[in-house]
Amino acid sequence: MKKIGVAILGLGVVGGGTYRILENRREFFKRTQGLDITVESVLEPNAARLAELGVPAEKAVSNIAEAVCDPDVSVIVECIGGVEAARDYVLGALHAGKTVVTSNKELIAKYWSELERTAKAHNAGLYFEASCVGGVPIVRTLLDGVQANEIDCLMGIINGTTNYILTEMTEKGVSYEVALEAAKSLGYAESDPSADVDGYDAAYKLSILASLAFHTKVPLSKVFREGIGSVSEEDIADGKALGYRLKLLAVGKRSAEGIEVRVHPAFVRGDHPLASVDGCFNAVFLTGDAVGDVMLYGRGAGSLPTASAIVSDIVYAATHGEHRYSTFRNTAAPEKDVKFAADFKSAYYLRLTVCDEPGVLAKIASVLGKYNISIIELIQRQAGEGKCTLVLITHETHERSALNAVAKLNATDYAKVESLLRVAL
Amino acid sequence: MKKIGVAILGLGVVGGGTYRILENRREFFKRTQGLDITVESVLEPNAARLAELGVPAEKAVSNIAEAVCDPDVSVIVECIGGVEAARDYVLGALHAGKTVVTSNKELIAKYWSELERTAKAHNAGLYFEASCVGGVPIVRTLLDGVQANEIDCLMGIINGTTNYILTEMTEKGVSYEVALEAAKSLGYAESDPSADVDGYDAAYKLSILASLAFHTKVPLSKVFREGIGSVSEEDIADGKALGYRLKLLAVGKRSAEGIEVRVHPAFVRGDHPLASVDGCFNAVFLTGDAVGDVMLYGRGAGSLPTASAIVSDIVYAATHGEHRYSTFRNTAAPEKDVKFAADFKSAYYLRLTVCDEPGVLAKIASVLGKYNISIIELIQRQAGEGKCTLVLITHETHERSALNAVAKLNATDYAKVESLLRVAL
Repeated sequence: MKKIGVAILGLGVVGGGTYRILENRREFFKRTQGLDITVESVLEPNAARLAELGVPAEKAVSNIAEAVCDPDVSVIVECIGGVEAARDYVLGALHAGKTVVTSNKELIAKYWSELERTAKAHNAGLYFEASCVGGVPIVRTLLDGVQANEIDCLMGIINGTTNYILTEMTEKGVSYEVALEAAKSLGYAESDPSADVDGYDAAYKLSILASLAFHTKVPLSKVFREGIGSVSEEDIADGKALGYRLKLLAVGKRSAEGIEVRVHPAFVRGDHPLASVDGCFNAVFLTGDAVGDVMLYGRGAGSLPTASAIVSDIVYAATHGEHRYSTFRNTAAPEKDVKFAADFKSAYYLRLTVCDEPGVLAKIASVLGKYNISIIELIQRQAGEGKCTLVLITHETHERSALNAVAKLNATDYAKVESLLRVAL
Repeated sequence: MKKIGVAILGLGVVGGGTYRILENRREFFKRTQGLDITVESVLEPNAARLAELGVPAEKAVSNIAEAVCDPDVSVIVECIGGVEAARDYVLGALHAGKTVVTSNKELIAKYWSELERTAKAHNAGLYFEASCVGGVPIVRTLLDGVQANEIDCLMGIINGTTNYILTEMTEKGVSYEVALEAAKSLGYAESDPSADVDGYDAAYKLSILASLAFHTKVPLSKVFREGIGSVSEEDIADGKALGYRLKLLAVGKRSAEGIEVRVHPAFVRGDHPLASVDGCFNAVFLTGDAVGDVMLYGRGAGSLPTASAIVSDIVYAATHGEHRYSTFRNTAAPEKDVKFAADFKSAYYLRLTVCDEPGVLAKIASVLGKYNISIIELIQRQAGEGKCTLVLITHETHERSALNAVAKLNATDYAKVESLLRVAL
């Protein structure tokens, strides 16, 4: 039976989950995969954590070199988090010809090219299913499941923290602040939640997924990013009344205008499969020219779901004879003939406070019309003090047109745009 | 660049789609996969079909041996359908050491062991992603995406024809016969629809998926099967009023009592991710001990979606150095220590016509109670002529208890059970 020795760097949430699965499931992997997988060493400075997980003292190493140089170790699992130290460790392991499995999306998004080049040069494997959407096998699907397809659109709810917050706001009508506190108290949000709520985490993942889907490097710098911090409960309720649900959406599209990649809050129609992806669940919806629409749904984070992806990568690496790398040219920059769209198209949700006077609606429609923006749906209600609230959904238009129209409306004396949100029709 | 010569046996819906993708996407696969894939020969007796697809005369062969013996052909795509001839052809190709890619679920469900043994013996590949749920990469996910997990439950809507019919009945309130005619006129149902509506197609797929999920051969003979032919619009409407949607569900479960596999109509709660899988869409929902709930959703049939799976298998076979086979022991029978549950547990929907007299409800509840069946929800309405209709949903109980209770009720003079349907809680 093939023996696979594993070293785990970092026994936090994900590394600890990986340790538990490998320790508890040794017989299972012997039986189902014909593999004897053992944890040979762990690098974890926190003695209490080692004790909590029951790691035998002889397996605890104090230095990355001990793990990398151990001839019994063929797979290094990187779960230390952060970027610079992780990069050093991973490069070291790849130089030594070890297979690296990592859940570190920021590392992959920022240093993929360098890591992959190093892996190729030393015939080492580099696997990162766990970096995107927890245990959902979306990386494997893009590499090994839908290769027959040109993929032109990929939309995902790929951050659990923000989806929990937006679901709370939608279902309970609470404010962003209240929902964020609930997420913190449940451990779904960090004490400094900015990586999640400002969309960085989703942007890292989108950069990786769009690169795989479009077969070219999509650098992080090309990802438009807007977080959920300024989303109001009023907008969520107004969208709900029109049959939409607000999600932090990661969108990758490819068209004649180029590739566009963006992370921002967006309303999704209630009958879209993504609309019912609630709470901590994540999903990626993609459209291929042959397969049509496909959606993968599951837990996007958490100890065991993410460790499931890491262990599945270990098994995959051990049971497949050749390492596969991304098939785009391995440079840090996108290929020369790849265009990125300078502007993108979307439908829009606008909430305005307007003067409750005859002719105002016509004036607003006229301003929008000048920017070629037409209205699909509209709600008007009294707001008191001689004002109305208008909530409207537009047809698709360019982002630039929408922003210009909003500026024009805000420059009038009869209308103020309170919110602008994108709508995925 | 690696060259892959393909022969396609049968240019029907799926074979034709495969031909089209390979012919139209040759440059795409060169660029994205580093593979030059060419169709070297096709076996298709229908000259009109060859002309329709624009197949050059020199590629049309008249005999399986011409394709199998061609040294330029390394992959044989089997799309002729049926079982016995397909089996001969596939065995011949495997004997010659060719990689076989097939969409033939009946062939795999019935002859998997023999085919796999032959493939191993001749170091040939055997791939069948297209046999289950069209372009949705569920086979790949079970083999390569969730291997870290013990999977205890798998539920799927894995037949597009029946899902289209049930969706029509649910949304338009039409009868089974009307919905079936609509499905036929759209080409979603065959003129003899029994393979779909009687659940055979879903049973083939469930036998394959459950075998992969549970790592042991789950023979077709173990699959309990009940079709949708006797489903009434009244039951669908009553279930809808209680918040459920009726689906032809394929269920695989593993528990201390053994493995249970069954295909039958079942009500799914409206808030379950499977409930909104409508029309021709399919989905498989599975639960792993580490990853938790995962769902894959997409088109379960059709020319290009199914061809997408075939072509993805061709690419996979060409880019992975080693053939992988199922990891259960390769016998036609399940392994000796595998138990199959003789009975299964489910919640139930019952519709009864009862005498509208005092005390009848108490009598019915008492009969159910004797079989340890308790009621979750109940609707009573007048049915005229001194009768009432009772619609009730029970807690989970054994199928045998439910059937015995129904027989007991039907033996009384105050109640008649009009329908019994299972409910997936």
